[in-house]
Amino acid sequence: MRTRAAVALQAGKPLEIMEVNLDGPKAGEVLVEIKATGICHTDEFTLSGADPEGAFPAILGHEGAGVVVEVGPGVKSLKPGDHVIPLYTPECRECPSCLSRKTNLCTSIRDTQGKGLMPDGTSRFSMLDGTPILHYMGCSTFSNHTVLPEIALAKIREDAPFDKVCYIGCGVTTGIGAVINTAKVEIGAKAVVFGLGGIGLNVIQGLRLAGADMIIGVDLNPAKKAMAERFGMTHFVNPSEIEGDIVAHIVNMTKTPFDKIGGADYSFDCTGNVKVMRAALECTHRGWGQSIIIGVAPAGAVIETRPFQLVTGRVWKGTAFGGARGRTDVPRIVDWYMDGKIEIDPMITHTLKLEDINKGFDLMHAGESIRSVVIY
Amino acid sequence: MRTRAAVALQAGKPLEIMEVNLDGPKAGEVLVEIKATGICHTDEFTLSGADPEGAFPAILGHEGAGVVVEVGPGVKSLKPGDHVIPLYTPECRECPSCLSRKTNLCTSIRDTQGKGLMPDGTSRFSMLDGTPILHYMGCSTFSNHTVLPEIALAKIREDAPFDKVCYIGCGVTTGIGAVINTAKVEIGAKAVVFGLGGIGLNVIQGLRLAGADMIIGVDLNPAKKAMAERFGMTHFVNPSEIEGDIVAHIVNMTKTPFDKIGGADYSFDCTGNVKVMRAALECTHRGWGQSIIIGVAPAGAVIETRPFQLVTGRVWKGTAFGGARGRTDVPRIVDWYMDGKIEIDPMITHTLKLEDINKGFDLMHAGESIRSVVIY
Ligand SMILES: NC(=O)c1ccc[n+]([C@@H]2O[C@H](COP(=O)([O-])OP(=O)(O)OC[C@H]3O[C@@H](n4cnc5c(N)ncnc54)[C@H](O)[C@@H]3O)[C@@H](O)[C@H]2O)c1
Ligand SMILES: NC(=O)c1ccc[n+]([C@@H]2O[C@H](COP(=O)([O-])OP(=O)(O)OC[C@H]3O[C@@H](n4cnc5c(N)ncnc54)[C@H](O)[C@@H]3O)[C@@H](O)[C@H]2O)c1
Ligand SMILES: [Zn+2]
Ligand SMILES: [Zn+2]
Ligand SMILES: [Zn+2]
Ligand SMILES: [Zn+2]
Repeated sequence: MRTRAAVALQAGKPLEIMEVNLDGPKAGEVLVEIKATGICHTDEFTLSGADPEGAFPAILGHEGAGVVVEVGPGVKSLKPGDHVIPLYTPECRECPSCLSRKTNLCTSIRDTQGKGLMPDGTSRFSMLDGTPILHYMGCSTFSNHTVLPEIALAKIREDAPFDKVCYIGCGVTTGIGAVINTAKVEIGAKAVVFGLGGIGLNVIQGLRLAGADMIIGVDLNPAKKAMAERFGMTHFVNPSEIEGDIVAHIVNMTKTPFDKIGGADYSFDCTGNVKVMRAALECTHRGWGQSIIIGVAPAGAVIETRPFQLVTGRVWKGTAFGGARGRTDVPRIVDWYMDGKIEIDPMITHTLKLEDINKGFDLMHAGESIRSVVIY
Repeated sequence: MRTRAAVALQAGKPLEIMEVNLDGPKAGEVLVEIKATGICHTDEFTLSGADPEGAFPAILGHEGAGVVVEVGPGVKSLKPGDHVIPLYTPECRECPSCLSRKTNLCTSIRDTQGKGLMPDGTSRFSMLDGTPILHYMGCSTFSNHTVLPEIALAKIREDAPFDKVCYIGCGVTTGIGAVINTAKVEIGAKAVVFGLGGIGLNVIQGLRLAGADMIIGVDLNPAKKAMAERFGMTHFVNPSEIEGDIVAHIVNMTKTPFDKIGGADYSFDCTGNVKVMRAALECTHRGWGQSIIIGVAPAGAVIETRPFQLVTGRVWKGTAFGGARGRTDVPRIVDWYMDGKIEIDPMITHTLKLEDINKGFDLMHAGESIRSVVIY
C-alpha cells in the first residue's frame, strides 16, 4: 500500500512529507493506522545527527496511538479495529529479560530494531523509487500507517482520545514509571526533579500520585515554574538565582529540626546533562538517597562522582521507558488518565498537521512547547 | 588508670608500644578490656598518611573483642563481665538514620567520632606527660583497655572466642553484610567479586550462604585462588592472564544458551581501585545488574561510567560495615560463626603479641596475611 509520512532523509535537515510504499504485515506483525503522534526529544536527538546510532533515510516518531488495520499470520492478541499504542520497548513475555521479572528491557527484537529493521531483518517502508526507508525505534509513528511486531503494541480502551494518550507511548510513562517502577517512591518522601520539560513534568505528577511530601523542581528557565506547580511541584529552584552550590542548597532545603543532615530521598535527572546527574546524586540523603537518571547524555559523555558518595549509602540508577512493561502497564496508565488520576491535556501545548511537523521541532528548540502532537 | 597501647605518633612511622593514661567512663560510656584485635586495611590507610582525615597521635584499631570492666552513669544495656565487640558504626536507635529503617549509618556521634573524640568532645587517652591521644573510629582497639559509648558496643555470647570473633568487628560483617543487607542476593544468582583479600573472602562466603550459583573471583594475585575456593568461589579469573577486556570476559562467562546477553547479577569491588569499580559495574547484566562498592578509594579519586550503563538498568551502590546495624546484627553473625554457618578460623593467618603489632602491618604489605590478630 501507499501511505503518507514525514521522512528524515538526512541528519540536520527538516523532515520531508511524501508518499511512501508500505508492505503489509508478515507473520507476527500488525499494520496500524496512526491517528496521532507526539514529537519527543529523542526524535530531535536523532534528526539533529547527535545520535551516533542514527541512520537515514528513516521514518522517525515513537509516541503514537492508532487503530489496527490488518494482522499478519499467527497474530493472536490483536484484531482489526483494536486501539493500540506502539511500544519502542516491546514485551515478548518469553525472553530472559521478560522472564527475569527484574527489568522491562525485553531483548527479543533488540538487534534488528536497533538497525531500523523488522525482526526478519528487512524494512516494510520504501520510497516510491524503491529505495528502502528505515524504521525507527521499532515504531515510525511519523507515518500515517506503519507495521509493528505484535509484541510491540499495547492494546488500549477504545474511548481514550488518540491525540492525548499518544503521549503515554513515551513521555508520560517514562516520567511516571521512573517514580513508581524504578524509584518506588513511598508516601511522605522528599524528591527533587532536575529539568521541568515534558519528562520532568511527568515525574512531578508521578510524585504527586505517589504521595511525596516535598516535590522540588529545578530548572534554569523560570517560565517552567507555573506549569510544574500545576502538576504538583511544591518548591522551585533556579540554579542561576541561588548563591553557591545547588547541592548544598537542596540539602539545606530538606533539613528539619529533627534531621539536621538533610538531602532528598529521591532525585531524578530529566536534563541529559552529566554535570546535573552528579549534582542530582550528591543532593540525596546520606544513607538511603536514590538518584534516577532519565535524561539521555550526548555521545561519549561520562558521569562521575567520588565512590564515597555510594559507600555512604546513596544509590545511582537509571530508567528506560520508566521501567514499564509496555503491554502490561501502558493500558493501566491509559486507565489512570481516563479516570482522572493523572493529567495529560495541559502538557499538550500544540497540535499540528503532518504537513507542519517541522514546526513542532522549531517549537521544541525555542523551548515554547511541552508537547507538540501531530494529528493525522 | 594506666594501660598498654600501640600508639601511632605520626603518619608513616611504626606504632610505638607504651603505657598510656586512660580516664574512666563518663555518663553513657563503658570501659572495655580488649582481648584481641584484628589489623585491617583501614588502619594501614590511616597510619600510612593516605587518609586525609587521619590525625595523630592516635590509638588505631577498630576490629576488636573484649570484656566490659566498668560502666559509667546511665548505662543500662551492659554490665561488667559482658562480652562485647566495639562498633565503629554505632547504633543509637533514636537518630534520624537509625529510625529511617533504610540505613545502618547512625549519625548520633558522627561529628566527634570523626575528630577522634568521645561524644563530649574530649579524649580519654593521654601520654604519661599529659599530652592527649586521639581515639580512632570510636574504637582504639590497639589499646589493652579502651572507653566507648554504650551505643558503640555489641553484646555477644560468652562462649565465642575473642581471637576469632574480633574479625566480625569489621571484615566479616562488611563482606557478608554487603551480600545480604546491601545487595540482598537471592538463591541461584551469579556474582563476581573483585579482590580476594580479607573483605573479598567474606563476600565470597556471604554469597555461598545466600545460595549463589556462580561465584566468580577476580584477583591479580594467583596465590589467592586456593583460599577463595575454600570459601565457595566457583570460578577464578586473573585479569593479567586473559585476552582482552575483563568486562567482556565476565559477560561471556555468564552467558547461557538461553541468555545470550550475559552479565553478572551482582558484583562487588573489594579492591578500592576506581578502574576496577567501573569494570565491576559494567560486567553486570543489562536490565538488573547491581554493583556494590566496598573498597575505599584514594583521596580525590572518582568513579566514572557512561550514564547509558544505568539507563539500561544497572544499579550502582556502596556499603559501609556491610549495611549491618552493629548492636542488632553483630551478635547474630557471632551466632552464625558459633553454629558453623560461616567460617573465620582459616582467614586468621597470623596471631601476634602487641609488641609485634608492626609485623602485622609488614605481613599486610607483603600480601602474606589475610588477617593478623593481636592477642593481649
Ligand atoms: N530514559 C528514557 O526512557 C527517556 C525517554 C524519553 C526522553 N528521555 C530524555 O529525557 C530528557 C528530558 O526530555 P524532555 O523531553 O523533558 O526535554 P525538555 O527539553 O523538554 O526539558 C529539559 C528541561 O531541562 C532544563 N534544563 C536544561 N539544562 C538544565 C540545567 N543545567 N539545570 C536545570 N535545568 C536544566 C531545560 O530548561 C528544560 O526545561 C532528554 O534527555 C530525553 O532524551 C529519556
Ligand atoms: N566499605 C567498608 O565498610 C570497608 C570496610 C573494610 C575495608 N574496606 C576496604 O575494602 C578494601 C579491601 O580490603 P582488604 O582488607 O580485603 O584488602 P586486601 O589488600 O586484603 O585485598 C585486596 C585484594 O585485591 C587484589 N587487587 C588489587 N588490585 C586489583 C585489581 N586491579 N584487579 C583485581 N584484584 C586486585 C589484591 O591482590 C588483593 O588480593 C580496601 O579498600 C578497604 O579499605 C571497606
Ligand atoms: Zn522479552
Ligand atoms: Zn521519547
Ligand atoms: Zn576495617
Ligand atoms: Zn543512630
